[in-house]
Amino acid sequence: MKRNVLIIGAGGVAQVVAHKCAQNNDVLGDLHIASRTVAKCEAIIESVHEKSAMKQDGVFAAHAVDAMDSDAVEALINTLGTRIVINVGSPFVNMSVLEACIRTGAAYIDTAIHEDPAKICETPPWYGNYEWKRRADCAQAGVTAILGAGFDPGMVNAFARYAVDTFMDDVKSIDIVDINAGDHGKYFSTNFDPEINFREFTGTVYSWQDGAWQENKMFEKRREWDLPVVGKQTAYMSGHDEVHSLAANYPQADVRFWMGFGEHYINVFTVLQNLGLLSEQPVLTAEGLEVVPLKLVKAVLPDPSTLAPNYTGKTCIGDLVKGTKDGKDVEVFVYNVADHKDAYNEVGSQGISYTAGVPPVAMAMLVADGTYDLGTMLNVEELDPKPLFTLLDKIGLPTRVKDHNGDREWHKV
Amino acid sequence: MKRNVLIIGAGGVAQVVAHKCAQNNDVLGDLHIASRTVAKCEAIIESVHEKSAMKQDGVFAAHAVDAMDSDAVEALINTLGTRIVINVGSPFVNMSVLEACIRTGAAYIDTAIHEDPAKICETPPWYGNYEWKRRADCAQAGVTAILGAGFDPGMVNAFARYAVDTFMDDVKSIDIVDINAGDHGKYFSTNFDPEINFREFTGTVYSWQDGAWQENKMFEKRREWDLPVVGKQTAYMSGHDEVHSLAANYPQADVRFWMGFGEHYINVFTVLQNLGLLSEQPVLTAEGLEVVPLKLVKAVLPDPSTLAPNYTGKTCIGDLVKGTKDGKDVEVFVYNVADHKDAYNEVGSQGISYTAGVPPVAMAMLVADGTYDLGTMLNVEELDPKPLFTLLDKIGLPTRVKDHNGDREWHKV
Repeated sequence: MKRNVLIIGAGGVAQVVAHKCAQNNDVLGDLHIASRTVAKCEAIIESVHEKSAMKQDGVFAAHAVDAMDSDAVEALINTLGTRIVINVGSPFVNMSVLEACIRTGAAYIDTAIHEDPAKICETPPWYGNYEWKRRADCAQAGVTAILGAGFDPGMVNAFARYAVDTFMDDVKSIDIVDINAGDHGKYFSTNFDPEINFREFTGTVYSWQDGAWQENKMFEKRREWDLPVVGKQTAYMSGHDEVHSLAANYPQADVRFWMGFGEHYINVFTVLQNLGLLSEQPVLTAEGLEVVPLKLVKAVLPDPSTLAPNYTGKTCIGDLVKGTKDGKDVEVFVYNVADHKDAYNEVGSQGISYTAGVPPVAMAMLVADGTYDLGTMLNVEELDPKPLFTLLDKIGLPTRVKDHNGDREWHKV
Repeated sequence: MKRNVLIIGAGGVAQVVAHKCAQNNDVLGDLHIASRTVAKCEAIIESVHEKSAMKQDGVFAAHAVDAMDSDAVEALINTLGTRIVINVGSPFVNMSVLEACIRTGAAYIDTAIHEDPAKICETPPWYGNYEWKRRADCAQAGVTAILGAGFDPGMVNAFARYAVDTFMDDVKSIDIVDINAGDHGKYFSTNFDPEINFREFTGTVYSWQDGAWQENKMFEKRREWDLPVVGKQTAYMSGHDEVHSLAANYPQADVRFWMGFGEHYINVFTVLQNLGLLSEQPVLTAEGLEVVPLKLVKAVLPDPSTLAPNYTGKTCIGDLVKGTKDGKDVEVFVYNVADHKDAYNEVGSQGISYTAGVPPVAMAMLVADGTYDLGTMLNVEELDPKPLFTLLDKIGLPTRVKDHNGDREWHKV
């Protein structure tokens, strides 16, 4: 049994993680949250208490920490007696937080791949550039590190594993589809940190097809989908974390990621990108001020956390997995549908933050009870998905399956 | 006779003014050019010598000056013996340069209305907020100040005066149309300083109709035009300087300004404006940096002066003037067509800079020979247009007239 959780970060996903940890503090023990700005942590704890989210009396305390500083994170872990770290801070802090976990023996869980602020879209497989270089160190120290444990990456990795294990002898393709059919009512907004959101789309789109990395540009490949609940939707092949681990674990399959975009999003993105306003490289104004365009764009866009109160509609995220069973072609769509308004009512966040924030708490609970505490570094498809699905059915993100036998809850397959 | 010219500013229009002054230095005497950055002045003088543009041997010297500082401009005028100042610097420096002219007795010529950097689109008539407040001072000091002496404002004011004087007993409407049918080959660029360009379109669109100021939004009113050379074009009612003086001089007429825009320009503008990226008010980034969005947009867009070498196509700018003559309705279109490539070949600039930069030099020549040296403040429609047209026929911007009697040079009417 590992207890006592430290949440790193205080953004929209951290808010969901905090609420879900509070709702399950009988399993998780003392709760702490730390970011550079302690006031943001305090505001999250306040919202937890406003919703009376703590399942039982217990600790939930805020701390200031620079998560780029491994020593500072290590000291905080030691001071607090933390056994599980849920890192939902900026993707720039993964490696420093992981280092602190390796030193202290605390379990590490994150939801997005490490990024170097100065680089966009490094060579595939992305995990190989940073995280996997510490795999041996984790194993040697007996440290559990679960990488990419949000929804996508995260649940979609588990969906792939489940589909292959349950329905196939051989897998031929894994297509991950992420559709947000919600409406936030603003002229334009990203659903999470604009800086991270746009960084996903300004580089090369890597997919794994025919046993090799393929390169495309963003919005070059589009495909029409007809999905449960959200209906007909257009999605574009995009670069995404989970492609890089699934390709390693299922090298025989084509692995692609598809993100839904409306024409309006694409138009705004295209204008900003063509003008150079999504660049992470500083430019000099006529007045001699050095400005990173992307950081200004982030400053003028709505704070994604402010979207939640008026967000309506649903998300559908799932995996279309194709393969063969007993020599016959089979295909199955494993998915979840989440509702923006339900998410807001429960934890004060919109649906995108909700889908990203609930799975890492489920992972933490499975680490706490030992199920997922395997003492090494793992991507989510390397874990048995069934305990995860069972838990998430109860705490907010039920898994469904659609194939030629119909559309039903996963456990009724 | 007034001789010796000081050009204030070193942008794209200043380049044209410098070349045209050089081509006519027999009339204009010693030439000087001053801006904050002396190197930009030196580069312009170098380009003048590269083209061997000086009509006769003479002075052309570069100076550094902060044109916001009246004392510094006054001292420079006195040191150089300047009798005519052509102000083509930023519209923020008009009033300080005019002040220096009033103190020294030098004639003052500018091409755009004064603007306060912190304000966009003040109440009409715009000239009443700054320039006209100094009219009595100019008259008392016997200082000639010709306001808005570029193309639009400038030549289009003269076109209106000419049309009314020549063809009508009463004027009913003056519609100024500015079409740039050129192609610069870039994804997006403004044709002059983006900061000034966008500031024109982010505020209220003022027009003078039915004897009163009317307010619209940008891109709210569109009209199709079929013009000489450039053909069918769409233009949108826009705010512009000359509406504010023509409405005072022809209060009985409706006065509107129409600017041509392609769908692509409007789309980019709309995205930038809706995101708040055209704001002149600073925003704070997550890193605590204070940035004026419009200044960053300016920094990422192409420098308009770099467009010139590859700019092709033509501009058509003119006035459709309607009225009555001997009790019958009459209408006439007075206009000029300019060619981007011709402008580049002659003075190293694109056509938009050329049309803005040639008229103030013509005005300076008419001040130099006494024709326009009237010792008071004037908008261009308050001057006899014929000497101006005659001179511009020779030095690069011929005026044409189109009405029911055909399309011909103005002097063949």
